[in-house]
Amino acid sequence: MTAHVTLGTREQARDGAPTLEAFSRQLLASGILSPSGVDGVWVRSATFERITEAVQRSVTALGRGRYETIQVPPVIARATLERAGYVRSFTDLVGSVHVFRGSDQQHADLLRRCDAGTDWAAVLDPADVMLSSAACHHVYPMCAGRLPPGGRRVEVRGECFRHEPSSQVTRHRSFRMHELVFVGEPVDALTHRDAGLAEGLELLSTLGLTVEAAAANDPFFGRAGAILADGQRQDAAKYEGVAPVGDLPTAIMSANYAAEHFGAAFAIATAGGVVAHSSCVAFGLDRVALALLSAHGLDVDRWPVGVRQRLWQ
Amino acid sequence: MTAHVTLGTREQARDGAPTLEAFSRQLLASGILSPSGVDGVWVRSATFERITEAVQRSVTALGRGRYETIQVPPVIARATLERAGYVRSFTDLVGSVHVFRGSDQQHADLLRRCDAGTDWAAVLDPADVMLSSAACHHVYPMCAGRLPPGGRRVEVRGECFRHEPSSQVTRHRSFRMHELVFVGEPVDALTHRDAGLAEGLELLSTLGLTVEAAAANDPFFGRAGAILADGQRQDAAKYEGVAPVGDLPTAIMSANYAAEHFGAAFAIATAGGVVAHSSCVAFGLDRVALALLSAHGLDVDRWPVGVRQRLWQ
Repeated sequence: MTAHVTLGTREQARDGAPTLEAFSRQLLASGILSPSGVDGVWVRSATFERITEAVQRSVTALGRGRYETIQVPPVIARATLERAGYVRSFTDLVGSVHVFRGSDQQHADLLRRCDAGTDWAAVLDPADVMLSSAACHHVYPMCAGRLPPGGRRVEVRGECFRHEPSSQVTRHRSFRMHELVFVGEPVDALTHRDAGLAEGLELLSTLGLTVEAAAANDPFFGRAGAILADGQRQDAAKYEGVAPVGDLPTAIMSANYAAEHFGAAFAIATAGGVVAHSSCVAFGLDRVALALLSAHGLDVDRWPVGVRQRLWQ
Repeated sequence: MTAHVTLGTREQARDGAPTLEAFSRQLLASGILSPSGVDGVWVRSATFERITEAVQRSVTALGRGRYETIQVPPVIARATLERAGYVRSFTDLVGSVHVFRGSDQQHADLLRRCDAGTDWAAVLDPADVMLSSAACHHVYPMCAGRLPPGGRRVEVRGECFRHEPSSQVTRHRSFRMHELVFVGEPVDALTHRDAGLAEGLELLSTLGLTVEAAAANDPFFGRAGAILADGQRQDAAKYEGVAPVGDLPTAIMSANYAAEHFGAAFAIATAGGVVAHSSCVAFGLDRVALALLSAHGLDVDRWPVGVRQRLWQ
């Protein structure tokens, strides 16, 4: 479960690699990311997008045409996120969308609150949508019912939101996930996770990243959450691919075996009639881009020729 | 301000063009868009994305390298949307992001509400972000202060949200905007708007769309909103490029002169020291894709060769 790749000159250069703080300063000075005025929400330059789009193409290539491909919006049905168990388990991370459905009189109240600088948002109501927390959450309701033999493979990308305010350039509240999802027979779901992890690490390695697999857990919330996190580690259900950004080891991909969690929640049955299991291999496109900028420098045109060829040819 | 282009066979075919309802049925049956479980939020297929990405490249080409290019996340600083005046003027369209910042006890309360099926979102607080309503809103805070001579040109794309629930396939609550924005001298802002409108209509025409410019107004909310909308029409501040989707004339682009609205709100001064004016030419990538599918059919490989060449060569 571990892949080490060292491109000689890069590894030597790492002895003098900047700290995350120094890397961040250089990154912002370069304009590759620009602040938006709030923590964890970044405006992306053409250079940054050139990288994330190339990584995205690489992930698609990893799928080798075996997946249905979808792109999902950044909002999702509230009922879907509730059924996924996300609200209960990751309560502190969710973004709930609230809207105005009031009368003229309530609008006048809202305007008065705006004028007074008090909390106008208090007059809003929850909408039927929330911010999407993981791209794959859109996939499971689409699989409800009986799956075809061999299960279903879906490549999904979309922008996600997790409320983790931080000024660190590696912790975006709004970020792009690109996932390869499998839903089907239990044994196939586990195979998909393990093969996807190996292939994902290999991909990141060929891009010149020093990436290692590490057992991990999701950041379940609250007291019950600690028990869930322990269980996830004991079951070896989650691995992350970790690469340095500056001097900070940063999870840039993950490979997750969800067992029957989503199959049960969304009433998905295998062709054989049992509750479907699922797994997903997820790439954080923004974080992969940051790891690449950290490894190869801020001037993309001076990245190692092999890396540029893999990304842009 | 009007551009008509008719590709002979297409225009003839339009006599038998399906209604929006029939087009929608065929579109959904084809899987080009899939429902997400709530109105106005659609899962996008690889085919749909192939089209939106090609349109996006065409809009970038329209900029001819004269613009800084940025990509923006679907959330924006709450303070930015407030300063932009969007909350007051389009109160019914905004999406406010609310998050959990409570104690263990409040979490227990939230879980009880989840169990009981009552409104758990009532225990949330407004975050410092909202959903982005227009891609260009991210641009104005970046321009605060004194502009360089000649002003600033920014190409911006991003996913936007407007709370207009509808089952119509043309009215997405979550949708992609691609805009060419100018901020600078008043006369230059107006020139940018008019030139961008002409060039945008020309672009859409070369893609085989029957597109017409129409004076328009933004959907300002409430009683005061009606007055603002009237003023906008009297000032000829907004034009839309309208093309049929099925039999429904649909705004697929707009060209907007905002005068000093954003310059004043975000303290942007021209090189000469006066309040900057701004204008933007905005393409609704999802709607342009729908208009193309309506005009040329659901099988992209059978679109007119000239259109395919423009989009993919």
